Amino acid sequence: MAAATAPSTASDGANGSAAGKAHQVGAPTNPMATALLTDQYQFSMAYAYWKAGKHADRAVFDLYFRKNPFGGEFTVFAGLEECIKFIANFKFTKHDILFLQSVMPMCEDAFFDYLRKIDCSDVEVYSIPEGSVVFPKVPLMRVEGPVAVVQLLETPFVNLINYASLVTTNAARHRHVAGKSKDLLEFGLRRAQGPDGAISASKYCFMGGFDATSNVLAGNLFGIPLRGTHSHAYVSSYMSRDEIPDKALTSKDGSRVCKDFVSLVKEWLQKILLADSLCGVFGETNQSELAAFASYALAFPSNFLALVDTYDVMRSGIPNFCAVALALHDLGYKASGIRLDSGDLAYLSIEARKVFRAIEKEFNVPAFGKMIITASNDLNEETIDALNKQGHEVDAFGIGTYLVTCYSQAALGCVFKLVEINSRPRIKLSEDVAKVSIPCKKRCFRLYGKEGYPLVDIMMRESEPSPKAGERILCRHPFLESKRAYVVPQHVEELLQCYWPGTSNKPRVELPSLEEIRGRCMQQLEKLRPDHIRRLNPTPYKVSVSAKLYEFIHSLWLNEAPVGELQ
Amino acid sequence: MAAATAPSTASDGANGSAAGKAHQVGAPTNPMATALLTDQYQFSMAYAYWKAGKHADRAVFDLYFRKNPFGGEFTVFAGLEECIKFIANFKFTKHDILFLQSVMPMCEDAFFDYLRKIDCSDVEVYSIPEGSVVFPKVPLMRVEGPVAVVQLLETPFVNLINYASLVTTNAARHRHVAGKSKDLLEFGLRRAQGPDGAISASKYCFMGGFDATSNVLAGNLFGIPLRGTHSHAYVSSYMSRDEIPDKALTSKDGSRVCKDFVSLVKEWLQKILLADSLCGVFGETNQSELAAFASYALAFPSNFLALVDTYDVMRSGIPNFCAVALALHDLGYKASGIRLDSGDLAYLSIEARKVFRAIEKEFNVPAFGKMIITASNDLNEETIDALNKQGHEVDAFGIGTYLVTCYSQAALGCVFKLVEINSRPRIKLSEDVAKVSIPCKKRCFRLYGKEGYPLVDIMMRESEPSPKAGERILCRHPFLESKRAYVVPQHVEELLQCYWPGTSNKPRVELPSLEEIRGRCMQQLEKLRPDHIRRLNPTPYKVSVSAKLYEFIHSLWLNEAPVGELQ
Repeated sequence: MAAATAPSTASDGANGSAAGKAHQVGAPTNPMATALLTDQYQFSMAYAYWKAGKHADRAVFDLYFRKNPFGGEFTVFAGLEECIKFIANFKFTKHDILFLQSVMPMCEDAFFDYLRKIDCSDVEVYSIPEGSVVFPKVPLMRVEGPVAVVQLLETPFVNLINYASLVTTNAARHRHVAGKSKDLLEFGLRRAQGPDGAISASKYCFMGGFDATSNVLAGNLFGIPLRGTHSHAYVSSYMSRDEIPDKALTSKDGSRVCKDFVSLVKEWLQKILLADSLCGVFGETNQSELAAFASYALAFPSNFLALVDTYDVMRSGIPNFCAVALALHDLGYKASGIRLDSGDLAYLSIEARKVFRAIEKEFNVPAFGKMIITASNDLNEETIDALNKQGHEVDAFGIGTYLVTCYSQAALGCVFKLVEINSRPRIKLSEDVAKVSIPCKKRCFRLYGKEGYPLVDIMMRESEPSPKAGERILCRHPFLESKRAYVVPQHVEELLQCYWPGTSNKPRVELPSLEEIRGRCMQQLEKLRPDHIRRLNPTPYKVSVSAKLYEFIHSLWLNEAPVGELQ
Repeated sequence: MAAATAPSTASDGANGSAAGKAHQVGAPTNPMATALLTDQYQFSMAYAYWKAGKHADRAVFDLYFRKNPFGGEFTVFAGLEECIKFIANFKFTKHDILFLQSVMPMCEDAFFDYLRKIDCSDVEVYSIPEGSVVFPKVPLMRVEGPVAVVQLLETPFVNLINYASLVTTNAARHRHVAGKSKDLLEFGLRRAQGPDGAISASKYCFMGGFDATSNVLAGNLFGIPLRGTHSHAYVSSYMSRDEIPDKALTSKDGSRVCKDFVSLVKEWLQKILLADSLCGVFGETNQSELAAFASYALAFPSNFLALVDTYDVMRSGIPNFCAVALALHDLGYKASGIRLDSGDLAYLSIEARKVFRAIEKEFNVPAFGKMIITASNDLNEETIDALNKQGHEVDAFGIGTYLVTCYSQAALGCVFKLVEINSRPRIKLSEDVAKVSIPCKKRCFRLYGKEGYPLVDIMMRESEPSPKAGERILCRHPFLESKRAYVVPQHVEELLQCYWPGTSNKPRVELPSLEEIRGRCMQQLEKLRPDHIRRLNPTPYKVSVSAKLYEFIHSLWLNEAPVGELQ
């Protein structure tokens, strides 16, 4: 429902072509992603270009980043769909124009007439598919179009790609350390950076390999599976079993009614506390917790999952949970499991598993030992890694703060640099070589080796012939002369695809579904050589330029050197 | 425009009272802040409460945090207005209910009838005023109402307060280290966590003491002043002055027209390069940069601000800027200044200032030496502190990534804990004492000393008499028996005010404007004892409970101890 107004915002534009495309692509997920969501200086520049008659100059910009996040050697590219939706709906409303006039009173009226008319029908967007594994310096997107318009896209594009790619990468890293067999649940809504930070986090964590989210709105918007259990407050809200007015529970098959489920639970609790195999494990348990668990089971007999650490996990939470689970079992239901939200998760999960197994044996309840143990409480890559090293019995991890805020590195430094204008290549120099941009409108290829792993990415000038499988090609480091190697690829993949053809009549790649993008991400990570992805001292993946592009970069660099000529 | 649909979403609710209030308060800034923006388990709990007939039990929850962020000893509270707007508009749409039914097929239909009917007309919200300086453990908000409804507010409230308070605090810390006289500009849009992360950042950085933002949409939504200059791409987009078709500029007073402003600039550049006092400072400059500056000045003669580091600050950017600024001066205009975005900002600002002063003297241009120098490039608290220690000539700081993502600590751990239900106090225990909640519906006071500084915050049971100025009162640490002190306040301030009276008929405090909240924040920070606010080893501010509340906490703690009684 949130995005319902955006298409009409776009359709008040006079130009039918962009609005027509908008209709196919849909509105941005976030209704605040409007054409005003940009930096003020982009409008200043648009005005200066317009004043100088340069606004329609054909510019080519590359969007890329310079360094992989989280100390790793890979990044997952995400946010493309939102960028395409953004340009499909890009149009200034009357309200926008009035506001811009009020904050830029020095600008001529004719400039605002120009702004009123622009859309992205004349812009072309080439992009690596969303969900791909990507590396520094290689353009994730190449955006071509009238310089004033494309400049207005810089800030929103960087905004939409930066956090999306960062959090998808973070999710993929969590998936890698947790292993394929564990369930990963995103619990970040309360700690995310605002409502939309949370919604984006849920979407992109799912893309990066998570299984579910607790965020209901994200479930609604993207169809992501929802998961979660009750909180401590639910347990605290109960004082005793007298607060449960209706204690009856019908058995799963509907054949009988247990009139007092709570008494059945109490009977089981007695048996657990007296059982030989569990002897000494338990003292007496907290009765308000027991009441809370019983009432929760009455509401969710087929999905009973209890948070067991409100009072004391081993002395109260576990026996109370087991009593309720056994009572449910009597009536044909199967409890889901427990969640641990504090304490030593490795130790507690192992002890809980022992009890579940002992109960399976003692009371002959098949599969009780396999009860799902979910762990939460400030988990991140490091703590999961530490749990793995210690040994644990956790089946599912609920991860919030560190995942969604990307706590260990809260931003990916995406940039958007001019590489060509009116067919003239441009370079951005810097005393820091890492900040020098790679000029020219480029094509980019990923070269695969015999074993199916990608070997190297190569950027070339647009006019150069594509690399071919089985043909030797020289790959050079863009800046270091001595770093170069011949590669004979077994397979060649062109990276940049056309997602928004503008007026070029190139075939447009359709936007895939979230599930498809997630699948691509999983598949690409599996194809990557394991040493690029490992946590400790990963090997950098090689990114190169063709010999021709190398020569060109360095000749342009000389021409643009700090000291120019006086005309 | 983004928020335009939210009121109608609210008004489809049947209950006129909440919708009526909604009308006064307005819609949430972010249209995605809808009633579905919560954790799935809040709905599970709502159902379990409803099944047990407990949903209308009157619950009291406290929202608070446990530790000040960024290694500091203070926090600025923000996000209240968005919470009040959220509850004013809290209502499930038909679409929401259909979705909830689809993901909770195990719930009875009558529960969804219940959800259809609920709103926040029966909820009371008491809060510390937005923009106040706050401390750990003291409730920022107290929310009372039917337990199932208030539980649904937990996640959105924590989401809306957490990042808002964190980034406002971060902004206030940057203001503190930069000093009052510097201009602080928020440049975070491109690196923020999504569109709304950016918009919130702009709002709350302004609240925390920033002067302006580059984010146009935030300027539009909140009336925050907009600032910014061109980017490197603008400079790179020019090759030579031939690209400026119309070189004429009318003088500021309109009395004459300079037909070739670019030639005037070139004349000034020659004079600068030949001037005795500047001798040896400059070589020759980059001509495409000069063309870009001249064209920008033609568009913005009254607001000329140039980014001077595209090629080489001292050898190209500064002399090119000065030539354009002097040419503008000939025509009665005053240039604004420069921005440095790379290199040694302390050194470059000092060298640039020397040149500006030399030009003032050499060419007798009054105030040229006072040209505004703005610095950007990955600035944060530490780098500004380091610049201050080295000495610099920067007048304005443009701060992005580290500010808006709260890079050094990306989340504030706000929690929302049940403290009372049906007038019975509740406590959440934990093996970690810092995580034990302070039970009871409480009133909170700030006690001020003779010098006007706040001395201590005290929480008391609602039934206790308020502390009075001039009367001695015992303030106890909530958990450590030995920590206690008598205080005689000079002035007493009650912290929690009624912002949403529900059905209580208490007078409601109106929501202040953003400017007023910003003023409150500035004033509160000035009133704070300097040792609480300093960067290095700040003194913790004391937070206490009354003797009566202390006794009560500890008796309840004993009662709720892990081992309970079997009934």
